[in-house]
Amino acid sequence: MIETPYLLFLGDAPDQLAAKVAQGIRDWRPENVVGQLRLQGCKADVKVPDMGLDAARAAGAKTLVIGVANRGGVISETWKAELHTALEQGFDLASGLHSLLRDEADLVATAKAHGRQLFDVRVPQVKYPIANGKKRSGKRVLAVGTDCSVGKMYTALAMDREMRARGLKSTFRATGQTGILVTGDGVPLDAVVADFMAGAVEWLTPDNDADHWDHVEGQGSLFHASFSGVSLALIHGGQPDALVLAHEPVRAHMRGLPDYALPSLAALRDTALPLARIVNPACRVVGVSVNTAAMGEDEALSYLEKVEREMGLPAADPFRQGAGRLVDALEGT
Amino acid sequence: MIETPYLLFLGDAPDQLAAKVAQGIRDWRPENVVGQLRLQGCKADVKVPDMGLDAARAAGAKTLVIGVANRGGVISETWKAELHTALEQGFDLASGLHSLLRDEADLVATAKAHGRQLFDVRVPQVKYPIANGKKRSGKRVLAVGTDCSVGKMYTALAMDREMRARGLKSTFRATGQTGILVTGDGVPLDAVVADFMAGAVEWLTPDNDADHWDHVEGQGSLFHASFSGVSLALIHGGQPDALVLAHEPVRAHMRGLPDYALPSLAALRDTALPLARIVNPACRVVGVSVNTAAMGEDEALSYLEKVEREMGLPAADPFRQGAGRLVDALEGT
Repeated sequence: MIETPYLLFLGDAPDQLAAKVAQGIRDWRPENVVGQLRLQGCKADVKVPDMGLDAARAAGAKTLVIGVANRGGVISETWKAELHTALEQGFDLASGLHSLLRDEADLVATAKAHGRQLFDVRVPQVKYPIANGKKRSGKRVLAVGTDCSVGKMYTALAMDREMRARGLKSTFRATGQTGILVTGDGVPLDAVVADFMAGAVEWLTPDNDADHWDHVEGQGSLFHASFSGVSLALIHGGQPDALVLAHEPVRAHMRGLPDYALPSLAALRDTALPLARIVNPACRVVGVSVNTAAMGEDEALSYLEKVEREMGLPAADPFRQGAGRLVDALEGT
Repeated sequence: MIETPYLLFLGDAPDQLAAKVAQGIRDWRPENVVGQLRLQGCKADVKVPDMGLDAARAAGAKTLVIGVANRGGVISETWKAELHTALEQGFDLASGLHSLLRDEADLVATAKAHGRQLFDVRVPQVKYPIANGKKRSGKRVLAVGTDCSVGKMYTALAMDREMRARGLKSTFRATGQTGILVTGDGVPLDAVVADFMAGAVEWLTPDNDADHWDHVEGQGSLFHASFSGVSLALIHGGQPDALVLAHEPVRAHMRGLPDYALPSLAALRDTALPLARIVNPACRVVGVSVNTAAMGEDEALSYLEKVEREMGLPAADPFRQGAGRLVDALEGT
């Protein structure tokens, strides 16, 4: 578990998109953020106070989070001086980059000398069990996608926020590196060894109060040839009581697979629900989350109406409209 | 790739079952075996010539395969003297045990001193790609099970042997440690990192002659909560042209999951086939392979007749009856 609050390291981010991890943390857990640290030439800004290491420590920051991704996902040499100083001043470091903090011998040495920790959230930290399939208390909802990267994480975070705003018991359960950095905890599922995938999801979503909802972050798609096994492990480890279908309507083909068309939402429902009912016979599909970012307002609203009519389910874009209707649907279960 | 032929090391196996890996190699690839090496107290016998290291080397053996599993899957200290001598005499060592040869510092040192290799077939040796889903030439058949350990590997090995006996182009593709030791090559799929599972199966079953069949060894079950993700990765990486349904009819519940009943063969067909058609729209279910070991002859034959009638598919027990009818069904595709 990564200690909060964070100072967000934006480094020399060449544009705003390069800081999307920092932006995600700032959007979803502003209470975990004391400020941002930007080096000379940084072109990103996540709209929190600019702060040096000293000031951030004084404000209570415990961890410097690398919230920037450069080409290749490497730890830039131009960041190193600041990272060393952070360790010396008592910060832990956390990163979701492909290149690992633990592979940088100089950082490892400084961390050791100062008793600090390096968190590479792409690397599993836990020896996960093999799944046992036993029914757990509490409730779980999982977004399943027609494709990868259609807004499953956003949907789960938005529904979790809405439930907490209503005073309901709710936890977002991260299964990818951005989600883990947002919350400080989770399972980097795509890096878990095959035999332990479903067990890792069981571990992540343990017994809970009967009226508590886990919002399990989805991964991949049952229809995506490269990653479908991860998606099924999430369904069978997660024992969802509710599924939300997630879709992005303007894609020409499956992400990274030019020969594959996207399935229909009906095909996704008819594939995912029977698989979920193997582990939870009471599972229901409660709604559709559509990423309408590429559509104008009128087009988006009429598309959502059409989906709602065709599927007989509430359909909403949680970014455009909030997650209220999806949470209403969940509360009805 | 492990060099053949092998000398099979049975150690001090306490009973015949403890030598089942050696038995599998001897049954399926007798041409890869020069003999067996048994220590004092060994209670197993796979019916090949008893042979010391010197004689086995003289007979051409290249690798000493640990064909015995003891409780806990460890490399016994009582085996060590013989293993060291084998390395000194020019054998490589291969093992599918949970404990790894590479973690035994003394064996590593001896192997290094004599330029020999240690093969731990549970550990992936290759940096597998992410699956690309591209259509490959040649044909592939995969057994999918109602449960784990219902005879999927046996079915694939038996069909491969039958096809080769008929002079057809056929390769068994191992995805588990026993299969890898049998053939000397394969992918230990349950130990592959999640993101690369389907890519590992694509790597294992590359382009081939149009009339060549890969018999891909199945793993897990789509209905098994612990391992279903591995099964789906096999389907989506393997792009099967044909599925064989594998079943063991006398189980009270799913293996290791007392709360889960086995699915019907019809449910397995209706779940697996649409998932396979995502990557190969021409995929068909061609037959049913039933492990009737727990039934008498009459009971087995009448059960197989019933399955055949209900499913409208050839049903056979390849151990009891041979794989001829399943191969006939495959050739009809």
